[in-house]
Amino acid sequence: MTAFARLVDRIAARRDKLTFTVEDWDGHCRTYGTGPEDFVVRLTDRRTCLRLLVNPSLRFGEAYTDGTIEVRGDLGKLMELLLRLDPSDVLPSLLRRLLDTGGSWLQRNSPFRSRRNVAYHYNLGNEFFRLWLGQTMAYSCAYFREPSDNIDTAQEQKFHHICEKLRLEPGLTLLDIGCGWGEFAAYAATHYGVHVVGITLSEEQKRWADDMLTARELQDQIKIRLLDYRELKPERLFDRIVSIGMFEHVGRQLIPRYLRAISRLLAPQGVGVLHTIGRVAPAPMDAWIGTRVFPGAYFPALSEIVSPMGEHGLHTVDVESLRLHYAMTLDRWSEAFEQSAPAVSRMYDARFVRMWRLYLKGSAAAFRVGNLTLWQIQFTKGPNDDLPLTRDYLYRDRTVDLANEYTLERNAP
Amino acid sequence: MTAFARLVDRIAARRDKLTFTVEDWDGHCRTYGTGPEDFVVRLTDRRTCLRLLVNPSLRFGEAYTDGTIEVRGDLGKLMELLLRLDPSDVLPSLLRRLLDTGGSWLQRNSPFRSRRNVAYHYNLGNEFFRLWLGQTMAYSCAYFREPSDNIDTAQEQKFHHICEKLRLEPGLTLLDIGCGWGEFAAYAATHYGVHVVGITLSEEQKRWADDMLTARELQDQIKIRLLDYRELKPERLFDRIVSIGMFEHVGRQLIPRYLRAISRLLAPQGVGVLHTIGRVAPAPMDAWIGTRVFPGAYFPALSEIVSPMGEHGLHTVDVESLRLHYAMTLDRWSEAFEQSAPAVSRMYDARFVRMWRLYLKGSAAAFRVGNLTLWQIQFTKGPNDDLPLTRDYLYRDRTVDLANEYTLERNAP
Repeated sequence: MTAFARLVDRIAARRDKLTFTVEDWDGHCRTYGTGPEDFVVRLTDRRTCLRLLVNPSLRFGEAYTDGTIEVRGDLGKLMELLLRLDPSDVLPSLLRRLLDTGGSWLQRNSPFRSRRNVAYHYNLGNEFFRLWLGQTMAYSCAYFREPSDNIDTAQEQKFHHICEKLRLEPGLTLLDIGCGWGEFAAYAATHYGVHVVGITLSEEQKRWADDMLTARELQDQIKIRLLDYRELKPERLFDRIVSIGMFEHVGRQLIPRYLRAISRLLAPQGVGVLHTIGRVAPAPMDAWIGTRVFPGAYFPALSEIVSPMGEHGLHTVDVESLRLHYAMTLDRWSEAFEQSAPAVSRMYDARFVRMWRLYLKGSAAAFRVGNLTLWQIQFTKGPNDDLPLTRDYLYRDRTVDLANEYTLERNAP
Repeated sequence: MTAFARLVDRIAARRDKLTFTVEDWDGHCRTYGTGPEDFVVRLTDRRTCLRLLVNPSLRFGEAYTDGTIEVRGDLGKLMELLLRLDPSDVLPSLLRRLLDTGGSWLQRNSPFRSRRNVAYHYNLGNEFFRLWLGQTMAYSCAYFREPSDNIDTAQEQKFHHICEKLRLEPGLTLLDIGCGWGEFAAYAATHYGVHVVGITLSEEQKRWADDMLTARELQDQIKIRLLDYRELKPERLFDRIVSIGMFEHVGRQLIPRYLRAISRLLAPQGVGVLHTIGRVAPAPMDAWIGTRVFPGAYFPALSEIVSPMGEHGLHTVDVESLRLHYAMTLDRWSEAFEQSAPAVSRMYDARFVRMWRLYLKGSAAAFRVGNLTLWQIQFTKGPNDDLPLTRDYLYRDRTVDLANEYTLERNAP
C-alpha cells in the first residue's frame, strides 16, 4: 500500500495545523500533528483505499455512506483538508482524468430527465426537509447581516434582499422559476403586493405550497404550477423574474437555453435576479455530489452565466458573491440535521443519515475553501434607466426592518 | 441616391419622437416629425453619402470632423438615434462585415504600440485636459450620488467608493495601474494612509503628477513611474491593486495577460478593483473611436473579464454597472468643453474641436442606449474571508461624508 501511504503523507503535509489520526484495516494508527485531536479517520478495508486512489471524491463519498470509512470528530475540517488538495497529489492528472468523472460536463437534461432528477432529491418528503430547513423551508443560501443570525432570520433577510434587488412594486407580475415550497412567493406577495406564478417540478413541493397558500388566503395572488421552464410560452411577459437555487439543476449544456427562455419571458426593461451556486472558474462537478446527491446538476462559473445573458439581451447590473453566507447556512442546516438524526434514521436508515451528513459538511467545506461560491446576479431586459443610481436602496431601513414584519404564521400545511 | 434616401427614411422611421431636418448637397430639405426641431443635419457633398453607406461609423466621424457633415442642434440626440439603428438597416450585414472595421478585434498592443497609443491621446497636453476634466483631473466615469452632483463632487465620490471597495488601511501598499494625473493616488494616500506606486505611460501625466505630489508633500508616500504593466516584476507583492480607466487600452488579445500580471502582483487574499468601460456582449470597437480617438482600445464584455480572472485565481466578489454614471460624466465634460471651445480652437483648430465634440457626445449616447457600460469589479487573490459579510460598508456614513473632507488644494502644478 505504498501509493496509499504516500497519499496520506501528502495530505498530512498540507494539514493546516490540524491534528488527526489515520487507522488502517490492520489496526495500524498514525497520528499527525501535536495539538488536540481534530478527527480520526478509520479505514475498514484495503479495497476502499484502492478505490480512493482512482476516484477520490466519488469513492470517499460512497465509502463514508457505506460505513467503510468512519470519521470521528470534525468531519468539516477533514473535508476542507481534502478539498485543498491538488488533485495531482493523488494520482498523475492524466491518469486521473481518464478514470475520473468525465460525464458530468456533458449531461444534457431533457425535460424527462430533469423531472426525474428533481424527484430524486426533492421528493424525499416534505417531512424530512422540514426537520432541518427551518421555518421558511428555504433550501438555498441565506443572507446573514450578522454572523449570529439564526437560520429563519437569515432566510427572511435573503427574501427581503432579493425582493429589493427585484424592485418589486404592487401590481407587478413575478415569475418564480423553481419556487420550492413557495415561501419566497408568499413573502413577495405579502410584503410587496405582486402577483406571482411559481413553477416547480416537484409534486411534493407543489402540494405543500398549495396547502400553505390556501391557509394564508394567498391562492388568488399566487399560482403554483407543475411545469418545466421549457414549457412556459412567452405569450405573457412578466415584469420580474426570479430564480433561487434552481439554476444549479439546469446543466451546463442548457445554460444558454435557460437564459434565452428568461429573456423571452421578461418584459422590456424588466428586472430579474438569479441566485445560484457557482464557481470562479469552470470545473466538472464533484463526482459524488453530481451522481449521488444532485444528479444532472452543474455549478457554473460567472463567465458561463454572464456570457449567454449578454447574448440574449440580459444586461448584468449587479453581481454579489455570498460565498461565506452559504457556508454559514450549511452550518445551521448541519446542526439542525444532527439534532434530527435519530428521526431521520427512523424515516430512512443509518446509511442515509451518513450520506446527508457528508453532503452538508462537505458542501460547507467547499464554500469555505473557495471551490464554490454563491452568485446573486441582478439583470435587466435591455438597458433600464429606472434603477436607482446607487445601491443604497439595498441597505436602507436597517432600523425599520421590513423582514421583521414577516411573521411565519405556520410551518406545516 | 436611392440607397441613401432609403437609409434616411429608415432612420426616420425609428426616430423616437424626434423632429429633424436633413439638407442635402443640392439644397433639398426634408423634415421628419412635427414637434420642435431637435437637430438639422446638413450633408455638403454626394461623396460623403456614398462613404457613409459603406462604413457609417468611421465615415460619419470623419465627415463630421472634416465639416462635410454639419449638425445644428442636439448632436447627442442624433448620435443616440444612429446608435439605435440596426446595422443591417444600412447595408446587408455580410457586405458590411466585409467592408467594415474588422481589424479592431485583432490588434495586439506591444509595449511600443501601447506607448504610442497612449501618447496619441494623453499627451495632447495637460493644459487641454485641464480645461474640461474639472479639479480632480480624473478622466474616467464619476460616481453620482445625486443627479445634481457637480463633476468634482462626483469624481471625489468615485475615489471614495473605490477606496472603500479596496478596503484600504494605513500602511498597506497599493499599486495604481494607469494612474493618470495622480489624483486618485493622492486621495488614497491622504485619506487612508496607504503607500502607492502609480504607473503611467504618459510622460505628460507623470510630469504633472510629480509636481502635484511634491507640492502636497506626498512624494515619499507615492511614487509615479513611467512603466508598462508588463515591466512590473512580481518580486514585490502589493496588498491592493487598482486600475481605473486603463483596462480599455489593454486590447482584446492581451486581457488574459493583463489579468495574469495583476494576479502575480497581488498578495494572497489581496483586494483589487478594476474600473473599466465594457459591454454586455462582445462586439468590435466602433471604427471611428478605435482609430481616430483611442487607437488600440477595446471595450470588453463582462464575460471576457471574469473568465480569465477566474483562471488566474482572482475571485470576483462584487460587480457594479455604472452605465448612466458615465453618460452623466460625459455630459459634464461636454458642457465644460463647449465653454472652452474657443480656447481649444486656438490651441489646436476647429477640426479638432469638432472631433472632440463628437467623441464626447457620441460616447454619452453610447452609454445612454446601452451599447456601453462601466464595469466596476471588486476581486480578491484567492478566497478572502476578511471582507465584511454584507456591502453595507459601502453605504454607511452618508452624513459624515468622507469625500467632503478632501479639499483640492490646487489644480495646476
